[in-house]
Amino acid sequence: MLVVMNHKATPEDIDAVVKAIESRGYVAKPIPGGDRTAIGVLYNKGAVDNSFFLGLKGVKDVVPVTRPYKLVSREFHPEDTVIRIGDVSLGAENLTIIAGPCAIESETQALTIAEHVQRAGAHIFRGGAFKPRTSPYSFQGLGEEGLKILAKVRETTGMPVVTEVIDHETFDLVEQYADIIQIGTRNMQNFSLLKRAGHSSKPVVLKRGMAATIDEWLMAAEYILEGGNSQLILCERGVRTFVHHSRNTLDLSAVPVVRKESHLPIIIDPSHAAGRRDQVIPLSRAGVAVSAHGLMVEVHHAPEQALSDGGQSLYPYQFERLCQQVRSIFGTFRAEENGH
Amino acid sequence: MLVVMNHKATPEDIDAVVKAIESRGYVAKPIPGGDRTAIGVLYNKGAVDNSFFLGLKGVKDVVPVTRPYKLVSREFHPEDTVIRIGDVSLGAENLTIIAGPCAIESETQALTIAEHVQRAGAHIFRGGAFKPRTSPYSFQGLGEEGLKILAKVRETTGMPVVTEVIDHETFDLVEQYADIIQIGTRNMQNFSLLKRAGHSSKPVVLKRGMAATIDEWLMAAEYILEGGNSQLILCERGVRTFVHHSRNTLDLSAVPVVRKESHLPIIIDPSHAAGRRDQVIPLSRAGVAVSAHGLMVEVHHAPEQALSDGGQSLYPYQFERLCQQVRSIFGTFRAEENGH
Amino acid sequence: MLVVMNHKATPEDIDAVVKAIESRGYVAKPIPGGDRTAIGVLYNKGAVDNSFFLGLKGVKDVVPVTRPYKLVSREFHPEDTVIRIGDVSLGAENLTIIAGPCAIESETQALTIAEHVQRAGAHIFRGGAFKPRTSPYSFQGLGEEGLKILAKVRETTGMPVVTEVIDHETFDLVEQYADIIQIGTRNMQNFSLLKRAGHSSKPVVLKRGMAATIDEWLMAAEYILEGGNSQLILCERGVRTFVHHSRNTLDLSAVPVVRKESHLPIIIDPSHAAGRRDQVIPLSRAGVAVSAHGLMVEVHHAPEQALSDGGQSLYPYQFERLCQQVRSIFGTFRAEENGH
Amino acid sequence: MLVVMNHKATPEDIDAVVKAIESRGYVAKPIPGGDRTAIGVLYNKGAVDNSFFLGLKGVKDVVPVTRPYKLVSREFHPEDTVIRIGDVSLGAENLTIIAGPCAIESETQALTIAEHVQRAGAHIFRGGAFKPRTSPYSFQGLGEEGLKILAKVRETTGMPVVTEVIDHETFDLVEQYADIIQIGTRNMQNFSLLKRAGHSSKPVVLKRGMAATIDEWLMAAEYILEGGNSQLILCERGVRTFVHHSRNTLDLSAVPVVRKESHLPIIIDPSHAAGRRDQVIPLSRAGVAVSAHGLMVEVHHAPEQALSDGGQSLYPYQFERLCQQVRSIFGTFRAEENGH
Repeated sequence: MLVVMNHKATPEDIDAVVKAIESRGYVAKPIPGGDRTAIGVLYNKGAVDNSFFLGLKGVKDVVPVTRPYKLVSREFHPEDTVIRIGDVSLGAENLTIIAGPCAIESETQALTIAEHVQRAGAHIFRGGAFKPRTSPYSFQGLGEEGLKILAKVRETTGMPVVTEVIDHETFDLVEQYADIIQIGTRNMQNFSLLKRAGHSSKPVVLKRGMAATIDEWLMAAEYILEGGNSQLILCERGVRTFVHHSRNTLDLSAVPVVRKESHLPIIIDPSHAAGRRDQVIPLSRAGVAVSAHGLMVEVHHAPEQALSDGGQSLYPYQFERLCQQVRSIFGTFRAEENGH
Repeated sequence: MLVVMNHKATPEDIDAVVKAIESRGYVAKPIPGGDRTAIGVLYNKGAVDNSFFLGLKGVKDVVPVTRPYKLVSREFHPEDTVIRIGDVSLGAENLTIIAGPCAIESETQALTIAEHVQRAGAHIFRGGAFKPRTSPYSFQGLGEEGLKILAKVRETTGMPVVTEVIDHETFDLVEQYADIIQIGTRNMQNFSLLKRAGHSSKPVVLKRGMAATIDEWLMAAEYILEGGNSQLILCERGVRTFVHHSRNTLDLSAVPVVRKESHLPIIIDPSHAAGRRDQVIPLSRAGVAVSAHGLMVEVHHAPEQALSDGGQSLYPYQFERLCQQVRSIFGTFRAEENGH
Repeated sequence: MLVVMNHKATPEDIDAVVKAIESRGYVAKPIPGGDRTAIGVLYNKGAVDNSFFLGLKGVKDVVPVTRPYKLVSREFHPEDTVIRIGDVSLGAENLTIIAGPCAIESETQALTIAEHVQRAGAHIFRGGAFKPRTSPYSFQGLGEEGLKILAKVRETTGMPVVTEVIDHETFDLVEQYADIIQIGTRNMQNFSLLKRAGHSSKPVVLKRGMAATIDEWLMAAEYILEGGNSQLILCERGVRTFVHHSRNTLDLSAVPVVRKESHLPIIIDPSHAAGRRDQVIPLSRAGVAVSAHGLMVEVHHAPEQALSDGGQSLYPYQFERLCQQVRSIFGTFRAEENGH
Repeated sequence: MLVVMNHKATPEDIDAVVKAIESRGYVAKPIPGGDRTAIGVLYNKGAVDNSFFLGLKGVKDVVPVTRPYKLVSREFHPEDTVIRIGDVSLGAENLTIIAGPCAIESETQALTIAEHVQRAGAHIFRGGAFKPRTSPYSFQGLGEEGLKILAKVRETTGMPVVTEVIDHETFDLVEQYADIIQIGTRNMQNFSLLKRAGHSSKPVVLKRGMAATIDEWLMAAEYILEGGNSQLILCERGVRTFVHHSRNTLDLSAVPVVRKESHLPIIIDPSHAAGRRDQVIPLSRAGVAVSAHGLMVEVHHAPEQALSDGGQSLYPYQFERLCQQVRSIFGTFRAEENGH
């Protein structure tokens, strides 16, 4: 962190800031410049509160310098993390496809869709049993019944299953059934849930908050790694902007940034980014081309009858096409991108 | 909701959309227009999934028409809600000031600040015992010890106290000590927490999510009212935008919109919006002038030693000045604004 | 500017960055830190291209330190600028109200509205003769005929008039008629227009671009001052965010920031921020309370017949009420705020 | 457009709104619903001012229904537009690559880079002669000398050249030298410039404004087509959001939306979106994968000495790799995407 002094700050002002820094246990290093002085704050272990110094006399600005996370950082763990779930590997040189309905509605629905997506090339099945819904009047998911159906899908098809956990209370239950536990956008900074996930033995998918910076997202991930669980997958699903032709704006530059900053795998959810079916295939191609480690896509055999998010779910024939296209793209450039 | 058909949609396409609407239990009402047809969706009770119809053949767009919330709506409850906490009233014609430190650090700190803010004119004391922190390495609050200090402040000064609850697990504990329970920005869509708050006997302050629309915010409030707790206070604290001269962008137009749409009281948190001390007084004046029912302000007697958010906390002498200014402003125009 | 090196950057990497800095005529000052080195870039006169150093080997990040503007800065010109237009003063301790229709439609319309707003307390009349319109099919203004009507309004009422200039070609014409020339949001970075305004003898109102940072806005102002025209008024009119209950989000924290950074006066346009009549009065009160030097408000005697922006124009009786309310607010706190 | 009435609006309120609609020459069609009435506004030719009806008694909301543009719309011109510049085709089934430095600095620089990019596979050369710069103190381009160098590049390599026009005054000059004229982000709503471009005989690249919706962008394009010039290429270059790990957020969902809404070709500028070299190749791959008609990329043979935007310019060897990767990706899926 760097504290930038006013042009007219007096030596006494500078001295007072140095003392304030030292009183917090850091080392202060004044750096006289052309027409003003800046003061470096060194050897701070955790995060320093940026705003603290802004109120001191003579201070013009405060600029953060180093990143606040450690365990998720590639600087401290240079090798790509690979997550193994049964026979499936996610991370590094793999392209892993997760697909299924937004919500589990019935055994027939789940099995029908699972067979479709497996045949098309999906590696992991997704489906919500507990659904976070904006409205208290919307369908909230089948709960444990949904989890049992997921177990049945795994048993029948052999595919691992991923499902969302929405609170601490039902975490044990979800953990018991799921192969991968998903933490959704609205819970990215539900720190109680993150801490619980840190003690889980199951891999976790952590979706990016809809207005989260990459630093905040990686700090949320840090909570989970700090708790002892390093099987973490990041999932970019679009951020909220002024744009309204898609539900969210898919931020694909997050992929090269995360891959550079962190060793954790990162996948793309084009369905929630788009919010409409006709953008899902193009955005999936883009997600693989930008170098994501995988995709998570909503598919439904009869989207016009789906209980949630039907309008963004692909038909099985569209998902098949998606798989073909992204595998071709992946094949063309990934070899030489190895290790980037 | 209105389903807008393509310019070239056939009568068969229109018919299929009508059937899809009816199959969901709604009434469909085609409206032939100049060069295209639109279809109204009527008598939908809860929210309809916007995206559902987007994928149907011949559909160009879907536009929502009615608001998805009921209990929070002024249409269904025309009178302003007033919350009473001991001798303090919040809502309607009152201007209520809540002040205190970001986090409770010690009994001495809390009592010192409480005396300052009470003398200056605060009605309610605020202070965090459980702190949601972006970094796992930051100070996380004193927990129950902090709650006990809050009780001591109430006992000593007579002021009601408000403090944040960060998860379902500690809700009972917080409820036992607090006069008002605060749900923070990052938990605005923690539905498990909202449901629990709906069963609380204590009034709740619900902060706006940092990227939440007013509809989403009011839907989150609807969860609490739907659970049976109608003592709800909304708190605008800034939204995330491209702007970086303040931590968040205080969205003051939310106040007239919420006051028109809802009967619930709405207050302003200028401290978290600004993130820096020198904007807090001007934004407080603006918040009262725009017609908020109150303010929630961070004050610390020694902000340069605060364990969190020191840079945005006012000195006691500044808070005194703030109270004088906002009371004058409130006096000048509120009389004629009665009932707005 | 500070170039932050990677944790693992070699002495050779650091050396190469130092040389790159020096090759551009700056002074490089390496600052060894706890676990990495940062390098200060000193004595840079104009702006340094941030992105330049990002591509060099071993560089992790680049953080700007000093502000890029000079002439608009309060550091270099500590006293508030006051603009005098006839008998009207704008800036420092004054509260100046500008009002009138969005577009000049006819002499009768302009004179009718001018009498209304003058009686209510407006100091300056506004009205568009050349209108920048999103659609080529919308009403584009009366052009020179509109300017002549503005001259008639000045002659009849004695009020100075402000009107927008939309291109270099018509600048001379507008300059001939107007007392103050307005540069609109969409032209904030039309550098050709800014340079021409720098050579004008008339004061200029420079509206903030709808996605402009304060630095960019002040740099646009710098173009005008650098050209020799220091009679400049800044106008905050809302920025584009994800929010949709108002047309734009009025960023009131810009006022204290601009007043601290710059000596130039800053006014608020609540009409374009809101885009709807029912938010204009509350936002005007907030704008004065936050400490703006004035307001620019749309008023129409028959808004339901206005050729543009009728929905956001106040009725004369509403404008009267607005003037009373903001004068009361201004009176209550401005005295003690003097000079702040 | 649909005017939604309040729940409690009286028949008189509804009548007054109907009359207001009819007084503007439209047809009003009341649509009684479950618990409120909506009124359709039909047969409006140009854009209707949304905000007009918001102020009328009993009106709750106004929702636009049809798109305001015509000539750019695919509904009215179903076939893809293909632009031909010499031997190069842009649009429909082509992948066209434009590359070169941000600014022309000298003949040697331009020719050196032109040879590099041509060898790697670029079809069109880019380079700025007139530069719009945020700061008046930054390098503003070589002006006509730069245009002459561009002509020399065309003569030597046979590649068509594209360069930016920044104002009406220099339009004739730029038109004389350039094969394609670029209108930059900051000028997307410089209507004077758009009108002039509408009378040009040269094709135009219209960059998206940094906070422009797709509707606004297509309306800006409509100005040019309405003027008679239908050789228009749209260019997505990122929008401004809260995100700061890239200079702008590349909005790739704009590509499928524009391709559906309009017949005009759309290309991607990954260099200005990213603002840093290490994101340019991944975003280029994504841009081609999402189905853009081309790319515009900044390349410099010695970026560390570039006079502007050096930090985002690729080295020639990187551009070569980019071309190989995007051609492979294009080959894999474009065939079956034909006609999409």
